[in-house]
Amino acid sequence: MKTASYVTRLGLDAREAGYQLATAPSILKNKMLTSLARLLRERTEEVLAANTEDIRAAEEQQLSNAMIDRLRLTTERLEALAGSVEEIAALPDPVGQVSQMTLRPNGLQVGRMRIPLGVVAFIYESRPNVTIDAAALCVKSGNAVILRGGKEALHSNLAFATLTSKALTEAGLPPKAVQVVETTDRAVVEELLKQKETINLIIPRGGEGLIRYVDENSQVPVIKHYKGVCHVYVDKDADPDKALAIAMNSKVQRPGVCNAAETLLVHQDIADRFLPAFIKEARTCSLELRGCPRTCAYNPEGIVPATDDDWPAEYLDLILAVKVVDNYGEAVAHIQRYGSEHTDVIVTENYTTAHDFIRSVQSSLVLVNASTRFNDGGQLGLGAEIGISTTKLHAFGPMGLEHLTIEKHIAYGDGQIRE
Amino acid sequence: MKTASYVTRLGLDAREAGYQLATAPSILKNKMLTSLARLLRERTEEVLAANTEDIRAAEEQQLSNAMIDRLRLTTERLEALAGSVEEIAALPDPVGQVSQMTLRPNGLQVGRMRIPLGVVAFIYESRPNVTIDAAALCVKSGNAVILRGGKEALHSNLAFATLTSKALTEAGLPPKAVQVVETTDRAVVEELLKQKETINLIIPRGGEGLIRYVDENSQVPVIKHYKGVCHVYVDKDADPDKALAIAMNSKVQRPGVCNAAETLLVHQDIADRFLPAFIKEARTCSLELRGCPRTCAYNPEGIVPATDDDWPAEYLDLILAVKVVDNYGEAVAHIQRYGSEHTDVIVTENYTTAHDFIRSVQSSLVLVNASTRFNDGGQLGLGAEIGISTTKLHAFGPMGLEHLTIEKHIAYGDGQIRE
Repeated sequence: MKTASYVTRLGLDAREAGYQLATAPSILKNKMLTSLARLLRERTEEVLAANTEDIRAAEEQQLSNAMIDRLRLTTERLEALAGSVEEIAALPDPVGQVSQMTLRPNGLQVGRMRIPLGVVAFIYESRPNVTIDAAALCVKSGNAVILRGGKEALHSNLAFATLTSKALTEAGLPPKAVQVVETTDRAVVEELLKQKETINLIIPRGGEGLIRYVDENSQVPVIKHYKGVCHVYVDKDADPDKALAIAMNSKVQRPGVCNAAETLLVHQDIADRFLPAFIKEARTCSLELRGCPRTCAYNPEGIVPATDDDWPAEYLDLILAVKVVDNYGEAVAHIQRYGSEHTDVIVTENYTTAHDFIRSVQSSLVLVNASTRFNDGGQLGLGAEIGISTTKLHAFGPMGLEHLTIEKHIAYGDGQIRE
Repeated sequence: MKTASYVTRLGLDAREAGYQLATAPSILKNKMLTSLARLLRERTEEVLAANTEDIRAAEEQQLSNAMIDRLRLTTERLEALAGSVEEIAALPDPVGQVSQMTLRPNGLQVGRMRIPLGVVAFIYESRPNVTIDAAALCVKSGNAVILRGGKEALHSNLAFATLTSKALTEAGLPPKAVQVVETTDRAVVEELLKQKETINLIIPRGGEGLIRYVDENSQVPVIKHYKGVCHVYVDKDADPDKALAIAMNSKVQRPGVCNAAETLLVHQDIADRFLPAFIKEARTCSLELRGCPRTCAYNPEGIVPATDDDWPAEYLDLILAVKVVDNYGEAVAHIQRYGSEHTDVIVTENYTTAHDFIRSVQSSLVLVNASTRFNDGGQLGLGAEIGISTTKLHAFGPMGLEHLTIEKHIAYGDGQIRE
């Protein structure tokens, strides 16, 4: 009951702050961001001291090294964070943008105007830097935000909250525009998912378990990213050199991220020219291949036979499933069946095949002759991103500032009434 | 269990049909719509016979006259329906539209392309015409659709399903692109709400109870429209003649619809010049007024004193709440507090006040000097509409064809990899 009333209050305060922030001019929002960047640099010691407490507790609880690394803040990481806040300040403000103004036959001038969503809640796990990134993106786009980070990062997140609150006050904006949940009680998440009167959107970030829980239990709309089962398809008309570079880059440049490739599809007509070189290159990178029978035939001892579990797998590791397909249609059907509508690539020099692939594959990013790793807000020119949405609604692919807004309709009249 | 597997099958079939429809050229989709319009005219008798069965059952169950009227089809209504299908055929196809193509510094050409959402499910009540409207809008936008109408309209809906299936076949499109649920089992709705693997969006249409049930229980994203508590604010700088015409038109032109006004706010400085004439006009239209004390003072016997329940009320009837406010700020605060972010109007000749109102009010349509009744896809130039969304995500306001699509990202490369 106490939790319920605490969370309801968070929502009401956020909504109130959101009303004020919605009409705040860019100059004030940018002032807040500039102050925040300055505070991140000025008060590094205070933030690092709080972070040390989190790290100590994590070590005592024997969390994995990977988790502790995600949790850790350093002077360099804070500097990078301050830099990214300044980059957000420099982006154009989507709020107030007017489009599609037209004059109706009755003289009514109608169009659309971008406005903030209102209140956004982030529910995330260990990385404390999400607190600053999400706060900066929400303030810039005129949204109030409620931040519920992982319990391991509580001290770091509260230290950040002190800075965001001070930066808001310095800019003359309502300090409750950014609220960090102050308790690690799990029930807070449950309550947040019920606040449909005050929260407009929930964005979960973290492991699949968290995201699934939020998605299945939320009464508030959720935009989420499940998994990236990304494909590179090497067409019969591919340039084998480009194919080799793109396939390797898609997999090994950073294997643990969502836009890394998980499956390589190879047209049977190019397999002889492409696969031996690829298999050799994979070996030099310690890349484990799991192949269909035709793939394994190229190196019966070096390739693990793939099972049915491999085609839908998101390894997030130096492992790649490889399948030889009879034709282009089989490749597209495989992507439809096993893919996650995240990122898919065709390597081909054939105009018609490329044209068809771009139309037929319904993923958040579809590429011709380029690496899957380009599915990223920065790489696609959106500026800072909140995440990559695989929800095919509101946003599909990298979410930038624009996706924290919506268009309302506006109409300028001169006494028009409806007959 | 039988219901669960039936609904799962509906979803799988829809997804499969959706893949095919997604890349179907406009010419085939328009052919389907032209055939459907022709069939609605050719096979009127068959549809009316099915409808007669529904009407007879409704009369036996002593449904209200209003409900029976909503259920009833006539030759005229079928002709109107055929006409609206032809209008949808004539609209531009949003699918395949490419925007924001830019060249990245590495030579990668990136942009966005509109694609269908995939599978849309409509859950609605008595009006059988929704079956045709929804089917036509979904086919035009390349989406497969599952239609679950009211049990009272089952025979009519199944007769329509025969026509959509024939029209799809005539155009060489998959007949399962439009599926009408063939049972009236309530459990079907429950199962539809779980099909997050195959259904991309659910749109409920009908009473508040149905919409709330769908929204609270769905694991699939929902776009909905709750209620329209629309305001007309007569500013101190209003032209009293325009104010009178706009306030009356907003309320009485069609009082039973969501974009009819429910509350009139009047600045105290114009009350003496405006309210007596308005009260007189209201009487000639049998419009019941429920006023704040200052309003009632203008006609103590003719105006019902408003209670706290009147300010958030959606009457959908010839009733209007009226409140005199001290100033502009109080009017905006009242709209924020009691409104439903649907449609709000200011009547003013003051440039600065109008400018501020357009920015400050966060409703799906904000108007200056025009009737609330313009919140309609046709009136705003969107063409046919699926409904008016008050969900502030993906679509806000009238939803046209564009809102049944989403933008994916596309990239044309020449061997680019990420460094």
